[in-house]
Amino acid sequence: MTEYKIALVGFGGVNRGLAQLIADSNPSWQATLGFSLKIVGVTDLFLGSIIGRDGLDAATLVRLPAAKGAFAQLPGGSADAMNEEVIKHSGADIVAEATFTNPVDGEPATSFCRWALQAGKHLVTTNKGPIALHAAELKALADAHGVRFEYEGAVMSGTPVIRLAKQALAGSRIKGFEGILNGTSNFVLTRMEEGLGFAEAVSKAQALGYAEADPTADVEGFDVRLKVVILANELLGAHLGVNDVSCKGISGLSAADIDAAQRDGARWKLIGAAQRSADGSIHASVEPRLLKAEHPLAGISEAINAVSFDTELLGAVTVSGPGAGRIETAFALLSDIIAIHTAKTGQ
Amino acid sequence: MTEYKIALVGFGGVNRGLAQLIADSNPSWQATLGFSLKIVGVTDLFLGSIIGRDGLDAATLVRLPAAKGAFAQLPGGSADAMNEEVIKHSGADIVAEATFTNPVDGEPATSFCRWALQAGKHLVTTNKGPIALHAAELKALADAHGVRFEYEGAVMSGTPVIRLAKQALAGSRIKGFEGILNGTSNFVLTRMEEGLGFAEAVSKAQALGYAEADPTADVEGFDVRLKVVILANELLGAHLGVNDVSCKGISGLSAADIDAAQRDGARWKLIGAAQRSADGSIHASVEPRLLKAEHPLAGISEAINAVSFDTELLGAVTVSGPGAGRIETAFALLSDIIAIHTAKTGQ
Repeated sequence: MTEYKIALVGFGGVNRGLAQLIADSNPSWQATLGFSLKIVGVTDLFLGSIIGRDGLDAATLVRLPAAKGAFAQLPGGSADAMNEEVIKHSGADIVAEATFTNPVDGEPATSFCRWALQAGKHLVTTNKGPIALHAAELKALADAHGVRFEYEGAVMSGTPVIRLAKQALAGSRIKGFEGILNGTSNFVLTRMEEGLGFAEAVSKAQALGYAEADPTADVEGFDVRLKVVILANELLGAHLGVNDVSCKGISGLSAADIDAAQRDGARWKLIGAAQRSADGSIHASVEPRLLKAEHPLAGISEAINAVSFDTELLGAVTVSGPGAGRIETAFALLSDIIAIHTAKTGQ
Repeated sequence: MTEYKIALVGFGGVNRGLAQLIADSNPSWQATLGFSLKIVGVTDLFLGSIIGRDGLDAATLVRLPAAKGAFAQLPGGSADAMNEEVIKHSGADIVAEATFTNPVDGEPATSFCRWALQAGKHLVTTNKGPIALHAAELKALADAHGVRFEYEGAVMSGTPVIRLAKQALAGSRIKGFEGILNGTSNFVLTRMEEGLGFAEAVSKAQALGYAEADPTADVEGFDVRLKVVILANELLGAHLGVNDVSCKGISGLSAADIDAAQRDGARWKLIGAAQRSADGSIHASVEPRLLKAEHPLAGISEAINAVSFDTELLGAVTVSGPGAGRIETAFALLSDIIAIHTAKTGQ
């Protein structure tokens, strides 16, 4: 009977989704996964925090209203976000960090990550900021403290891309990759192929909840750029910063461009890519590319994400699936916890 | 310095490919994978056999002519295939079985597999026969003898499909799958979309080495059926035999069928599939299906294979890549050996 105590940092959609999975499935995980989870603390800058070393009821947490200071409504809860206390002193074995992405300095998430690792907690996160900007430092911290640091969900939510490349493709060197790494922009391009203009397509994405009120990060490639940095550093051994990746979005594509491509049986896609050159240097970019029908990413429509790896022994190996979503991203945290358990038990 | 001693059973394209990988990359694997491999025995019904407990030179083995009894040309080699001796008594830690697929009773490969496991050797194979027909018995043998039994390459050669589903997607229950699991038939369908008739397309596949002189197993779905049995039993917990899977190939598709699909923006694909019903029963089939453009498998052309998993938490997750090839399939054996090493070292 292995039980991991877990602290949730950030209680928006993703960690609420994890609490939902725990509420729904924890009893069966002992049989199917070999462990169960006990939530011992939750903290959120907006909602406040709560510690319950004997275990908090996941279903109760899921029902918490999204109101400022709402944790004060629960026995023992507080309207204050006692982040450091929850991370370091709730008795957690594992910290699940899922606060907002700050693409400039990765804060406050990166500090939360440092605290967890320094306190000897395993760390799982879906947050692109700390990984794109500070992965090397955080990995070194994890190693120094003998704990695991897993972040499968930072690139394609629950669709396994890092683990596919690093584990299942181990032994076949990855020379580069191309990816459709932003669902919103791919949704917009799919609508433009149906005849909508760029602005109309963005409005439709906003109406359906795919795009934010300010769609810049999605359509100008900034979101993809963070993911390219993560994958290039992780899979190609690059040491890229955000500014090492050239970045051009899809806002310059016209209806005429889309039409011309379709007449040729081709499709415009926003591609995040990196490739190792013969001299060992890594070239990385985000840009619209015109893909012929036979390209492994040409068939990826709607808000689906995909990455095609250029591998030494297998050629192109491609994985596609959801790149966002509350439960999908929460599953990434669960898959990270499964990986921690697997590493501990050698199974 | 971990070194695994390996015996190669069957020395056609696949194990010759593994010997090639060893010749090319063994010195670097100690650093990149944490182990090296030493070939201590090889046996092949046509070529004969050789045992070299201190290690056989992989490059020399790769150069062996494909002539009857050729192992007798090497010092210590024999024109006789001393299968049992090589499997049980060459000192191997791992046996790599890559003889021909017998879809009727899985022999002689299944006996080779039993000998290896009973002798306490880890077993890796790319052979569909023993897995489709006798996986449960062989798994029980492996458990009883405390050794690993890995067969990633039995479905899609080196493209990781079993490991993706069982490891990277662990925690998100798989409800079913659809796959394009035969490169030859997919190549034929792609050529038919370009205007060739069925017979012409098959001839082209034969000319390029994709199809055998007798293309029946590829185009009538029998090859796919074995893979459906393997995946359904492995991933859905089914207990299917070959005759539990309905099977219809592509030879009945006419040029008019292909044309009509194309006019609708759809494509005919030979789909191997299995799905768990609400009552827990598993329905499995091989048949041509008309896929709309947005289907995750609709974009898979040429000889590429792909499987789309229907998962509980992520919806459709799809992986595509090569489904055949000498080095690609040899890589599957390497990836199985990596999995054995990972399980041993808990990393």
